[in-house]
Amino acid sequence: MSSCDSGLTRAGALSCPTCDRALAERLQTRIDRLTKPVGSLGRLETLAVQIGLILHTAHPRLIAPQLVVFAADHGLAAQGVSAYPSEVTAQMVENFLTGGAAVNVLARQHGLALTIVDAGVRSEIPPRPGLLDRKIGPGTADCSSGPAMTSAQCASAIDHGRRIVDTLPGNVLLLGEMGIGSTSSAAMLLARLGGLGIDECTGRGTGLDDAGLQRKRAVLRYVLERHAGSIEPLSALAAFGGFEIAMMVGAALQAAQERRVIVVDGFIVGAAILVASRLDAGILECCVFSHRSKEAGHGLMLDILGARPILDLELRLGEGSGAALTWPLIDSAVRLLAEMASFEAAGVSTRLA
Amino acid sequence: MSSCDSGLTRAGALSCPTCDRALAERLQTRIDRLTKPVGSLGRLETLAVQIGLILHTAHPRLIAPQLVVFAADHGLAAQGVSAYPSEVTAQMVENFLTGGAAVNVLARQHGLALTIVDAGVRSEIPPRPGLLDRKIGPGTADCSSGPAMTSAQCASAIDHGRRIVDTLPGNVLLLGEMGIGSTSSAAMLLARLGGLGIDECTGRGTGLDDAGLQRKRAVLRYVLERHAGSIEPLSALAAFGGFEIAMMVGAALQAAQERRVIVVDGFIVGAAILVASRLDAGILECCVFSHRSKEAGHGLMLDILGARPILDLELRLGEGSGAALTWPLIDSAVRLLAEMASFEAAGVSTRLA
Repeated sequence: MSSCDSGLTRAGALSCPTCDRALAERLQTRIDRLTKPVGSLGRLETLAVQIGLILHTAHPRLIAPQLVVFAADHGLAAQGVSAYPSEVTAQMVENFLTGGAAVNVLARQHGLALTIVDAGVRSEIPPRPGLLDRKIGPGTADCSSGPAMTSAQCASAIDHGRRIVDTLPGNVLLLGEMGIGSTSSAAMLLARLGGLGIDECTGRGTGLDDAGLQRKRAVLRYVLERHAGSIEPLSALAAFGGFEIAMMVGAALQAAQERRVIVVDGFIVGAAILVASRLDAGILECCVFSHRSKEAGHGLMLDILGARPILDLELRLGEGSGAALTWPLIDSAVRLLAEMASFEAAGVSTRLA
Repeated sequence: MSSCDSGLTRAGALSCPTCDRALAERLQTRIDRLTKPVGSLGRLETLAVQIGLILHTAHPRLIAPQLVVFAADHGLAAQGVSAYPSEVTAQMVENFLTGGAAVNVLARQHGLALTIVDAGVRSEIPPRPGLLDRKIGPGTADCSSGPAMTSAQCASAIDHGRRIVDTLPGNVLLLGEMGIGSTSSAAMLLARLGGLGIDECTGRGTGLDDAGLQRKRAVLRYVLERHAGSIEPLSALAAFGGFEIAMMVGAALQAAQERRVIVVDGFIVGAAILVASRLDAGILECCVFSHRSKEAGHGLMLDILGARPILDLELRLGEGSGAALTWPLIDSAVRLLAEMASFEAAGVSTRLA
């Protein structure tokens, strides 16, 4: 057994290129011996190899997957950038806690442990089972008149995100979020960190009409100009928000450090991964991108991240719904590797010479 | 309650366009009241509506999904059209029966009932639990020197397929197959029934190299010319085979008549659906196309069928593996419709005026 398999799964973030190459070969050899034509499981084979590399073993197992949904409000919502009022954030948190949202249905279907985090919802939410109160503030400030958060708030949110993941069991983290106004923050982070124009980064979010989209673009253009100096990842994050995105940055950094598989949802979670990857590019090795969202800008974001998502179902819901929908396919990739018979064991003839 | 909901789910194949329009509207209205932005579940919404229409109810439930894998040999394999020897068909049936194949792993993961049908494997397979012996013959005849099967064998295979489905519980049929040489039959059926050139319909199957692919194309071109008169669906099916495809034609026709949801796997199952749809175009209403295979020709086949598959994972395994991988997404579509809270019930604000 090589040192790659020495149980260091959760020990350190740094990968070892030589071990990785050898381990990748061992994983591919295992896959090629399974009773199927070579390569015939397509992208599930690539996924199985990636997961083996993340978990530092040729015999990966996925344990106790954790779906964490970070919720927070955005001060910029006051500028009319969303089709829904800010109240919906707290109402949807209530819906999560009573089990009626899409993400609840999917978590139940797949046996995913679900944690809801109040990262900064505007109203008070009484303590409840399944809810973590990590409120940084009652929503971010309106970033059209100042930064969305102070750098201390930003650091605190990242730290909370790290500590939440540190306490979770298992070796898979599925990230989701909720927050009216969040596609605005994500679009501005994409534009600033990706060096892109805001129009191509901005979509309809929860369903703006043409006039609403035009207004949103104008507001975001103004906010970007107002914070023209915020070009570093953390200053951009503080300028544009939100608390849930900052907390997911910390969660992703911690998960990668612990070598967990990170299942990335759509546009908003992608923005957190973009920020986190600018702080530590290595985290991308641990990310499985679940789906291509219908939100305009997500394709550009995926390109910048070098990501090739698994599903393309025109989803644009958030909540971690895309991550949860992708979970059984990720699970399949690992189960096929673990449970399929080899040609030798099953007495199946290999290909003709 | 409209007559669409009157419990006729399994009664008749003929759909009622007026009922369908009204029912589709009822389904969409139900979906639009769920706590999510309108349309944000993307293709899962379309899928939920389709399943409601198949099952003739605004409150669809998927019951006891049945995955049936039809296995048979192809006489044409003697002409060197596959990278694997014919023995592999029987060996893989053995692998299915002992639980070591990809489809077993996926069926276990998702709780799918799995039935293996010997539709015409070359060697004898002793009776076993989980195996249905419906052997039409020890593989089809070599269609480079005559038709693959007689019209009586073809009719018998279709009849067996019908009767197998008739005895199965539940309202979902997932179709899979196994048979060395099967992509050749599927390619010829596609070329003949689709009016296409054989080269664009022919792929590498289990993994032919360039020389093997050239040989396969030459053989198939010869066989197509030899059976130039076989232009009707059933005569083409008899000419090009195979027994597993003919049995799946019957299975699909029966499933559609009983208004079951038919989950279509890849290229070979697609060929059976193509034949069946030429006998009764209405069956396509009941088909959910699971994935876009990497096998060349599958894209053309999907276009001809007007199909838009759910997954695109570069799979090319068969066995029903693509259908099984898609199952949890189909299940999700129905569960989301059944279990999500409405805006009204959850007290969530709807969009701004």
